Amino acid sequence: MNDKPKNLPNAQPNGEPLKPLTDVVLERRATAEFLPDEVPEEFLEAILKLGAQAPSGYNLQPWRFVVVREEENRKRLQAVAFNQPKVGQAPVVIIAVGMTREWKERADEVFREGAERGAGSLDTWEKYRDGAFQFLEGMQHMPTWVNRHTMIAYTVMMLAAEAYGFDTAPMEGFDAAAVKREFNVPEEGEVVALLAIGRAKGAEKVYPGRFGLSRIVYEERFGEAWEGNDEV
Amino acid sequence: MNDKPKNLPNAQPNGEPLKPLTDVVLERRATAEFLPDEVPEEFLEAILKLGAQAPSGYNLQPWRFVVVREEENRKRLQAVAFNQPKVGQAPVVIIAVGMTREWKERADEVFREGAERGAGSLDTWEKYRDGAFQFLEGMQHMPTWVNRHTMIAYTVMMLAAEAYGFDTAPMEGFDAAAVKREFNVPEEGEVVALLAIGRAKGAEKVYPGRFGLSRIVYEERFGEAWEGNDEV
Repeated sequence: MNDKPKNLPNAQPNGEPLKPLTDVVLERRATAEFLPDEVPEEFLEAILKLGAQAPSGYNLQPWRFVVVREEENRKRLQAVAFNQPKVGQAPVVIIAVGMTREWKERADEVFREGAERGAGSLDTWEKYRDGAFQFLEGMQHMPTWVNRHTMIAYTVMMLAAEAYGFDTAPMEGFDAAAVKREFNVPEEGEVVALLAIGRAKGAEKVYPGRFGLSRIVYEERFGEAWEGNDEV
Repeated sequence: MNDKPKNLPNAQPNGEPLKPLTDVVLERRATAEFLPDEVPEEFLEAILKLGAQAPSGYNLQPWRFVVVREEENRKRLQAVAFNQPKVGQAPVVIIAVGMTREWKERADEVFREGAERGAGSLDTWEKYRDGAFQFLEGMQHMPTWVNRHTMIAYTVMMLAAEAYGFDTAPMEGFDAAAVKREFNVPEEGEVVALLAIGRAKGAEKVYPGRFGLSRIVYEERFGEAWEGNDEV
């Protein structure tokens, strides 16, 4: 495996500093239309490398990402994504895939190398791996597990793209079986979501509102009113 | 629903600026042991409010968060989370829950108010809602859908906590049925993950390595080698 990425760009392409996370989260809107402007290679790689740093259970990293940039392929993806024009328009669309079985083939490497790096013990990594297998094989629904994990890396990528000043569109509107067929995703792969990255064309979507904390947060037990500040 | 939150703290509790997202992602480690230091209310609310701004399909926000802070309850949670000491130690543990049915009760409000705010049309919101219902009712496995969405808000919270200088531990090791029972989560609720927030005690875990992009990223089609830079 690799060490932490070094030399990631620490500014936006125009030289401005990265947006602070508060601005990233508050200003992000799902982009409806994209300009054809490309995402410079250095920034796309930084976005992918940051996503790859996301945490996962036992560090198994059960996520894979297909980067679709060729126009012909974006159009093919659009056709299996309810024909949403933004899929064909955006210069980059990432297909996020969760692997329900492949993690097992990579597990020895992950556990042994983690131990070698000092994140575990060289005497006990096999026992730890066996415990992980027991936990994961007891999982009722592996597609849910890989969806959950893949969304962590996916969300990091979305926020990283926004911090670098790009616009994004997270998408779940697609025919998963058709995406798998068209993009050679193996049978065990779960197509989790699509992420378009580029530059918005025209005005961003209006903010549609969000539930206040009193409607989504509970104190101590589900159903017990959140007593904190609910002002905007 | 609410407007965007205003007046979120724009610095860490010690007055230092928020960490840039690159540092947040590269320096974050799953914290193994927590100090008892509390997370100041203003920062906990900011973390929750930022999570609440995450995107979701049709803006349905199918996530709920139980904030567990009382020691007795953290111990009860620890008991159903494979007795991991950090659950009882951390000053705040958030139980992230995805709701597989409740979104439907809130859908009229979401679609109508979105239209009123200008994110849709007042003439067509009901049609749009009906299309959403058709899409969602055709979903093969609603627990996967709510897990996916809840993880977006969850990941935003984890990164926001780190940007404000706190330490976090994302956790999936728990007995979901027991968590539901102990914390009154209704039958339709999916316990997605736990997030501990606080201050790390002692050294953070060692970085265990990550797969390089050549092992998780494909060009154009699954299986086609990523030709970009794979250096760290």
